[in-house]
Amino acid sequence: MPMNKAWVVASLPEGWVSEENFRLVEKPAPEPREGEVLVRNLWLSLDPYMRGRLSRQRSYTKGVEPGEVMTGQTVGEVVASRHPALRAGEKVLTNLGWQLYGCARGEDLVRLEAARAPLSLYLGCLGMPGFTAYFGLREIGRPKAGETLVVSAATGAVGSVVGQLAKLEGARVIGIAGGRAKCDWAVHELGFDACIDYRTGNLLRDLREACPRGVDVNFENVGGEVLDTVLRLMNPFSRLVVCGLISDYNREEPYGLKNFRSVLVNRIRVQGMIVFDWKDRYPEALQALAQLHAAGKLKYRESVTEGIESAPRALVGLFRGENFGKQLVRLA
Amino acid sequence: MPMNKAWVVASLPEGWVSEENFRLVEKPAPEPREGEVLVRNLWLSLDPYMRGRLSRQRSYTKGVEPGEVMTGQTVGEVVASRHPALRAGEKVLTNLGWQLYGCARGEDLVRLEAARAPLSLYLGCLGMPGFTAYFGLREIGRPKAGETLVVSAATGAVGSVVGQLAKLEGARVIGIAGGRAKCDWAVHELGFDACIDYRTGNLLRDLREACPRGVDVNFENVGGEVLDTVLRLMNPFSRLVVCGLISDYNREEPYGLKNFRSVLVNRIRVQGMIVFDWKDRYPEALQALAQLHAAGKLKYRESVTEGIESAPRALVGLFRGENFGKQLVRLA
Repeated sequence: MPMNKAWVVASLPEGWVSEENFRLVEKPAPEPREGEVLVRNLWLSLDPYMRGRLSRQRSYTKGVEPGEVMTGQTVGEVVASRHPALRAGEKVLTNLGWQLYGCARGEDLVRLEAARAPLSLYLGCLGMPGFTAYFGLREIGRPKAGETLVVSAATGAVGSVVGQLAKLEGARVIGIAGGRAKCDWAVHELGFDACIDYRTGNLLRDLREACPRGVDVNFENVGGEVLDTVLRLMNPFSRLVVCGLISDYNREEPYGLKNFRSVLVNRIRVQGMIVFDWKDRYPEALQALAQLHAAGKLKYRESVTEGIESAPRALVGLFRGENFGKQLVRLA
Repeated sequence: MPMNKAWVVASLPEGWVSEENFRLVEKPAPEPREGEVLVRNLWLSLDPYMRGRLSRQRSYTKGVEPGEVMTGQTVGEVVASRHPALRAGEKVLTNLGWQLYGCARGEDLVRLEAARAPLSLYLGCLGMPGFTAYFGLREIGRPKAGETLVVSAATGAVGSVVGQLAKLEGARVIGIAGGRAKCDWAVHELGFDACIDYRTGNLLRDLREACPRGVDVNFENVGGEVLDTVLRLMNPFSRLVVCGLISDYNREEPYGLKNFRSVLVNRIRVQGMIVFDWKDRYPEALQALAQLHAAGKLKYRESVTEGIESAPRALVGLFRGENFGKQLVRLA
């Protein structure tokens, strides 16, 4: 058996997650049991939700306990199979977490079409973040032609898909991102109507200028002050998709939202979402997004760090907004 | 013409509204023009939304300017008519505001059936507060049998109807109110399963005890710390009806909501509401509520102050929670 390297959780962070919260362990890869396959992971996805797993705070799914391998999606290759429907060499989507090798039951894997798109995209615009954008817009945000949609973390794995899908619906799309380079990319590559750098200038003033007719849909990935500011500009009967609140995830005390009254005054429909709730419809989302991608209508960008060793550092960077596009770790 | 007494807005409050924000003026009642009637007001309704009218803050409708008669619904009697369909002696619902007499176009009045129920009820359980409860529950909260519903300001004009309607749907109903007397009334008269006095004890602990299976519907009338606490107990896929945020209305700085993350984690559907949005369906609500009232299934309580002079003091009392049930001013 090959040697496995795995990041296990050493301790649960208070406040900011740090590299010290993880410990790298090495041991031989496990042998697959009947019905299982051994997978060699090629790509590890890093996502904001991971902070919630490093916590005992009540959430939609249980957290990772110290001593367990850190959770995460990967794309991998089957290297040994004891499952009738999976052969060595097949590419699969897994939940094996932060490690080079792992065994999984065949039923818990999704077979990927390597010919259709680069494999890493199944962790991004053709995977969970893309599906999040798809269902959040389609089922909650529902932008109509001519409406104004704001999306925060606009160049991230979810935000970049949100904005492009909304443009295809005919909406005016305003992004919020950190830094000039990200904002330029959102406008020039993704085709957003504007993108505001929340780190410079005055977010309220800049948003007001970019949204002269107010905000009809806010696709919220950040929360905190960003959400509080957008709330001030939301229109009557607007929609607020609560997809992520990354600015809060590493705070010991959550941000106190001051403009909640806008929900009442403007009869805003607010809906929290977790993409897993639509898992029965993932094939529909994949089909739609893969078609757009094949047609060149879904631009996409990745931040890749090299080697399993880099994972904790890259996760910390994700919460600091250091990634530019989907954050991945190349494992092989 | 009889002498009119009217409260005009003297100044817009910063923070708490006070009696000094109003000025009583006397002058002869106006004469109705063609198409108008002269109404003598009998009952004036006092409602939390009035604080929003005394403000230049953006809201769903424009505020009252200093020098204008303070806004409000009344029940009155036509004393002179220049409208073909309205005769002297008829009872009507008006928006004439805080005054003894006023003229209105016939089309802006609603004729009331005095035989069906005491007239004051058309400002309460058979009027705007009752309709608010009806549509908020039916269109947003949608409590199902066996679910747990929490309603704040539980003995108020809206809350008392909310709880009774939810009980009729088979929900478990937990009220939140200020003081032992209100809580006892909610349980013994309205039939709530429990009612928590937010002024004593520990709201979170008491709510947790009263809601062992969490909260499926929160009908929010208060906001602030009460809302923040209920958010901690809300279940996956629960609903939050944002009907009122009275605890914030007199604050200069709004309360900072800390547990908004519950919306994300629990995929809560949050919806702000203003009852006017259903005005085309008021007859449906009136029919349903009047039937329940006639059948003795809609208990109801009023706080009545005497005379137009008492209106400002009663409004201040409303924001301090001094009313017990629907707050009214008897004008004649």
